[in-house]
Amino acid sequence: MARVQVAVIGSGADHEASAEEVGRLLAERGATVVTGGLGSVMAAAARGAKSAGGTTIGIVPGETRHGANEWLDHVVVTGVGHARNLAVVASGDAVIAVGGQWGTLAEISLAHVLGRPVVILEPGWDLDGVVRASSPEEAVDLALSSLPESK
Amino acid sequence: MARVQVAVIGSGADHEASAEEVGRLLAERGATVVTGGLGSVMAAAARGAKSAGGTTIGIVPGETRHGANEWLDHVVVTGVGHARNLAVVASGDAVIAVGGQWGTLAEISLAHVLGRPVVILEPGWDLDGVVRASSPEEAVDLALSSLPESK
Amino acid sequence: MARVQVAVIGSGADHEASAEEVGRLLAERGATVVTGGLGSVMAAAARGAKSAGGTTIGIVPGETRHGANEWLDHVVVTGVGHARNLAVVASGDAVIAVGGQWGTLAEISLAHVLGRPVVILEPGWDLDGVVRASSPEEAVDLALSSLPESK
Amino acid sequence: MARVQVAVIGSGADHEASAEEVGRLLAERGATVVTGGLGSVMAAAARGAKSAGGTTIGIVPGETRHGANEWLDHVVVTGVGHARNLAVVASGDAVIAVGGQWGTLAEISLAHVLGRPVVILEPGWDLDGVVRASSPEEAVDLALSSLPESK
Repeated sequence: MARVQVAVIGSGADHEASAEEVGRLLAERGATVVTGGLGSVMAAAARGAKSAGGTTIGIVPGETRHGANEWLDHVVVTGVGHARNLAVVASGDAVIAVGGQWGTLAEISLAHVLGRPVVILEPGWDLDGVVRASSPEEAVDLALSSLPESK
Repeated sequence: MARVQVAVIGSGADHEASAEEVGRLLAERGATVVTGGLGSVMAAAARGAKSAGGTTIGIVPGETRHGANEWLDHVVVTGVGHARNLAVVASGDAVIAVGGQWGTLAEISLAHVLGRPVVILEPGWDLDGVVRASSPEEAVDLALSSLPESK
Repeated sequence: MARVQVAVIGSGADHEASAEEVGRLLAERGATVVTGGLGSVMAAAARGAKSAGGTTIGIVPGETRHGANEWLDHVVVTGVGHARNLAVVASGDAVIAVGGQWGTLAEISLAHVLGRPVVILEPGWDLDGVVRASSPEEAVDLALSSLPESK
Repeated sequence: MARVQVAVIGSGADHEASAEEVGRLLAERGATVVTGGLGSVMAAAARGAKSAGGTTIGIVPGETRHGANEWLDHVVVTGVGHARNLAVVASGDAVIAVGGQWGTLAEISLAHVLGRPVVILEPGWDLDGVVRASSPEEAVDLALSSLPESK
């Protein structure tokens, strides 16, 4: 049976240290880290997960592995551009958003459409009715505690 | 050459009258109305456009025309579920959002990612940096005036 | 209610004259012509349809109208690359294949998966169990006669 | 850096023993096995890979893990229905087809569009210009020898 998977989404150089910590903590808790597979927050989360011996999956938008970061164990090549955002959040049993702009907001929204629990690591997008966390530790705690008992 | 196309997105019974008016005004101004092809705001916008002799396109999520409303001249069947939202906003030279929940927010966000002008008809989602309109007339004016000169 | 839509797929300079004739005949019979919206057979089918006063829809792979041919009334911009092939055939009540290489074979196959009637205009791909036509007239006859009574 | 990934596609109860052997041999050779994640040949290939201690990824069409087989280490949930076939073959550095019907032919075709090497394990689809193998051993040899030196 596949392990718990948590999608880490977002962007922004200012948020990479937080994303790396989120990735590391998820790996320590045994969760596979799923991202969009490219740079910035996506790379940082994967790097953090690998630093703790975790497993990482990147779901990239292009038709080849081009642009995939070096901390991915597995690269899923979708060929569907921004539509791959749906696969990123759908593949998370929970989703943690770190920073980010419009693409991240689209992913947060799609996660809600699909019923995936979402945690926004502050500051990040300010949305009513979304769980917020003030630290990477809290974000990971909230994400993992949001999962249904039985996967 | 294809005419100007404006995507109308959103949901909510309280917003259908506004959406119908938006559709009617777009048709009167010569714009083709593009929607997600199903009910609620999508159906109202298409109904409004047809009441003024306009042209309507619905881009539906399923693998058949099932669920498409009756005011569509053309039904594009995508088979890709929520990923069809990308096609809805990408097919609009501009986008008008009327009401809506998470799916609409995903579409507004994707429109920004793709660089499509977006107008939110109030109340609707409250987002920084998005153009807002207080009436269907203003929404249509703002959407059509946002278009580049040359298509 | 949306009119009958027939998808015309394929590629190859040698097949453009046939595709143009297929487009023209479909328009004369009142069917909307759906294609992938770009050049070669896609452009020829749309050109033929417009020469007979028909209606044309192009479903393009990119994130803008870039590359869309000039004989399209409506351009659906999908942003999903080759995955737009699914939308092309799904949007046809029937599918006519004119020439073509691997991309066309993928579309013929997806049409079968979705249960859309397919007619291959000879020579084209040689596949067991697929209806073949020896002329554009026969291809259009077979495609339109394959439709269920009630759309 | 992500390891070599080989997509195993197909369907048909008669082909499951072959698919299981293909999965086992790929795992022994160090390749990650990528499939569409559901039953039949997809499940058999994953089962074979796990029997040899390999790693398996399933790329499923729905919006949840529902239907995913039990031999998957990682489940990528795409939510895009048959459009997930593009991701399956795009994620393979090479593709091995075992049995299969129209959906498999679509995948073989898309793999050619994307330039992925394809090996058809006999009998399977009979297509000009596609490499064929008469045994699981030969299929795996041919697939792995088709890879570019540098990944």
